[in-house]
Amino acid sequence: MNRPRNVLFIMADQLRADHLACYGHPHIRTPNIDALARRGVRFDRAFVNSGVCGPSRMSYYTGRYPSTHGATWNRVPLSVDEVTLGEYLRNSGRTLVLAGKTHVMVDHAGLERLALDGGSELGQLLSAGGFEEIDRYDGHHEPGQESGYPAYLRRHGYVSDDPWTDFVIAARGPDGKPVSGWHMRNARYPSMVEERHSETAYMTDQALNFMERMGEAPWVMHLSYVKPHWPYIAPAPYHAMYGYEECLPPVRNEAEKHDAHPVLAAYRQQEESISFSSDECQRTVRPAYQGLITQLDDNLGRLFDYMENSGLMDDTLIIFTADHGDFLGDHWFGEKELFYEQVQRVPLIVVDPSPAADATRGGVEPRMAESVDILPTILSWLGLPLATHRLEGRNLLPLLYGQHTDWRDCVFSELDYSYRLARQIVGKTTQNARAWSVRTDRWRYVYWMDEPEQLYDLESDPDQFIDLGRSPNHEAVRAECRSRLMDWFTRLKRRTTVTDEMVEKGTNAYKKAGVFFGQW
Amino acid sequence: MNRPRNVLFIMADQLRADHLACYGHPHIRTPNIDALARRGVRFDRAFVNSGVCGPSRMSYYTGRYPSTHGATWNRVPLSVDEVTLGEYLRNSGRTLVLAGKTHVMVDHAGLERLALDGGSELGQLLSAGGFEEIDRYDGHHEPGQESGYPAYLRRHGYVSDDPWTDFVIAARGPDGKPVSGWHMRNARYPSMVEERHSETAYMTDQALNFMERMGEAPWVMHLSYVKPHWPYIAPAPYHAMYGYEECLPPVRNEAEKHDAHPVLAAYRQQEESISFSSDECQRTVRPAYQGLITQLDDNLGRLFDYMENSGLMDDTLIIFTADHGDFLGDHWFGEKELFYEQVQRVPLIVVDPSPAADATRGGVEPRMAESVDILPTILSWLGLPLATHRLEGRNLLPLLYGQHTDWRDCVFSELDYSYRLARQIVGKTTQNARAWSVRTDRWRYVYWMDEPEQLYDLESDPDQFIDLGRSPNHEAVRAECRSRLMDWFTRLKRRTTVTDEMVEKGTNAYKKAGVFFGQW
Repeated sequence: MNRPRNVLFIMADQLRADHLACYGHPHIRTPNIDALARRGVRFDRAFVNSGVCGPSRMSYYTGRYPSTHGATWNRVPLSVDEVTLGEYLRNSGRTLVLAGKTHVMVDHAGLERLALDGGSELGQLLSAGGFEEIDRYDGHHEPGQESGYPAYLRRHGYVSDDPWTDFVIAARGPDGKPVSGWHMRNARYPSMVEERHSETAYMTDQALNFMERMGEAPWVMHLSYVKPHWPYIAPAPYHAMYGYEECLPPVRNEAEKHDAHPVLAAYRQQEESISFSSDECQRTVRPAYQGLITQLDDNLGRLFDYMENSGLMDDTLIIFTADHGDFLGDHWFGEKELFYEQVQRVPLIVVDPSPAADATRGGVEPRMAESVDILPTILSWLGLPLATHRLEGRNLLPLLYGQHTDWRDCVFSELDYSYRLARQIVGKTTQNARAWSVRTDRWRYVYWMDEPEQLYDLESDPDQFIDLGRSPNHEAVRAECRSRLMDWFTRLKRRTTVTDEMVEKGTNAYKKAGVFFGQW
Repeated sequence: MNRPRNVLFIMADQLRADHLACYGHPHIRTPNIDALARRGVRFDRAFVNSGVCGPSRMSYYTGRYPSTHGATWNRVPLSVDEVTLGEYLRNSGRTLVLAGKTHVMVDHAGLERLALDGGSELGQLLSAGGFEEIDRYDGHHEPGQESGYPAYLRRHGYVSDDPWTDFVIAARGPDGKPVSGWHMRNARYPSMVEERHSETAYMTDQALNFMERMGEAPWVMHLSYVKPHWPYIAPAPYHAMYGYEECLPPVRNEAEKHDAHPVLAAYRQQEESISFSSDECQRTVRPAYQGLITQLDDNLGRLFDYMENSGLMDDTLIIFTADHGDFLGDHWFGEKELFYEQVQRVPLIVVDPSPAADATRGGVEPRMAESVDILPTILSWLGLPLATHRLEGRNLLPLLYGQHTDWRDCVFSELDYSYRLARQIVGKTTQNARAWSVRTDRWRYVYWMDEPEQLYDLESDPDQFIDLGRSPNHEAVRAECRSRLMDWFTRLKRRTTVTDEMVEKGTNAYKKAGVFFGQW
């Protein structure tokens, strides 16, 4: 590797780990992602730090847990006090470019308070979540000026004031007329746009064009797809690629609805759970969801072919992951958020082309990774310093290099359901609708504010059907999990105004500062 | 009360609760503070949120715990992201003036990052910790331009490049020659400055002059004395006002040094503990410390007389407290920081002149108060809104008004000893030298990162001689305390970019935003 190093950080939205062939799905075809896994290391136990887009992504972009970065739900802006991957790169003279989704909510109040609204260079960077935008496109609403996609659609014949609503998430119904993708019953029909004009294809083109433009110049790109996230509308032929017999059967039973945890019972009263509880809904959505995944894989194939042919594969760190999974009706839930493997476990493939990583190439890594690890991994690979007083994740590269290293034996995740109907159903305030979870090899434990605990024995009950949160025989396990959570809370990094080096240098140094207390 | 309301928030530095007559000291004379207590309510159980100046003060100034505001020790700047009392007042068109000490460390890196260094109005406010300075004077080093005290001293005949070192903290030794107050052996000698030119008198004059200048105009003042904090040098006649027989006997025994907690053992190896462990040191320092307290009381008498005569007593909320206590050799420690009553318990007197508070006037409040309560109390008294998404303390006024209210049954405090020699002695990093403590009616519990717990039964062992942290009979108590701490951690307020009202309004409102997920 003589050329400068590039980083390609690919994120899929709402992609369950178990919905890739290389993660064991018996029917989905994902040959290009599978090939990527063979080029690098597939983390078999990678988990998000929140099962919600916004907080999960902010953990990827800051290297910090939601309790620390504070953007605990989709509508909570990331404080201007937080430093993102883009700012770390900028401080080292590099740029983080973006093609796709970030879900960054701008902290307008913070920018206004600090009189940073648009004026300074940092103000602009903060307004864009630390990114330099190739094309910012968050999906699930008509994009504005930040994306070229609407104009692109119009140029290709999808003429409308709102081509996203009228074509992209609209499906061609049985009589040929458009029906809305906002209704999951329509997931069986193809999108009104051709595949080559779909969101996934468009954003892949943006990335390809960027790579071509850059030529030999180094780059760091976040390529962030909005799929297979809802609206679940796939273009032909992907909409009909899979039959329901090729889908995983729903993981749910009647018993789990009885005497359920109050917050879970409340989530089951939300519309998405009610919808997905019907057999028809999950039978309709799952094939389309799988089609969207294979479509994503095909587009990644185009990208990886270009990288192979242009030599970029030889000097680019590639990370492929997702921001969380999708219940798809499992456990009688729709969507995400809660502490089940379907939501919390995501794919994570890391390809490091350097010879140091040859020893593990094509292997499966059983040690646990978390979203907060990605930022320190990227900075480490670029040889950039790590802000150890801020970063709560760990560099994954030693695992790729086969280096012996003490590693974590559990992961953490969080939920703030203040904005959800479920909060109102259980009668919580906007300050105590929170939960924190720890997952070890064997146990999934959840601490809910002012609600009962949850506990699942993943060894005897891998599907999480039996909540041992109130089991008298498991108090010792719960105590051990609480103790891990307590330890985690104490290690959150809020002392951000001094670096660890500054503290080390200042230790016991008061006499140097002319202060001589305590002398007799 | 027809005139606008004023607030006088008085802080003493390093003043133990048990060193005031109204708090039961058998010998110290503090008639003016005692009279203040009779005018209002004396909180018998008021505790700081950290036993160190900086973090404790930042909890007073932000209404947030050190784990949240992040300024966990004296040398850790307060992040520009934190909102202080001065900024809350400014947002309501008022000003917080300062006479004396704040220990605010400016977040230069944060200001520089945000390009706020001095330019904007907020930049200036943040640079001054949110205060408009009458006279900023942090003590224990020669003040700079921020204080008029050096020039004042020179005008009054104390001519030197460094009149603080050469006169204020210098004492007149037995042969008439100056000796340094940095050596505690000299605490028996009088300061080289006359009482009327001392730090305490000077700052009292600043406050008096300010009140005179303001006339009928409303104000909020933080009058923050640097005494009785070291250097322990009192001006005549206070230096010799008390004999050792009028001091509390040291609270310590040989047994507590055996098999001591590792961090406590390390603190006992620091110079201030070694010094104070000698009988001679504490016999020398305690009388001077008491003299400094009576001197403070006499000066407060001058201030209160003026307020009485000018009618200010009728429309001023007065709060008198301290940032932490002082070991003075108790438990073989000098200084502060650790989780003993001598350090953590402070005086707190709140005088509300309004008729609503008549019912409790002159009373003693047994319910627990914390430093974080002061800011919401001040804002509430001024009728200003409370930022409930940031504030972790509670308004104390309902207690003064005899209103029935659910109240806390424990308080919390923290320590970051990363900067101390003790950290190096126990072999900790700059990231795991931390402790959190909970104090209930009966128990004082301390959770140390990667070190044993501490537990004291204040009922059977009020002097905290017997550490039950490893007692097998007390695991249930410790578990209960850990559970309280865990609950506290979950309630820290880091979601600062949205108000509670914004969350309430945004709850279950996605369809209003044009997003229709989960519909069948």
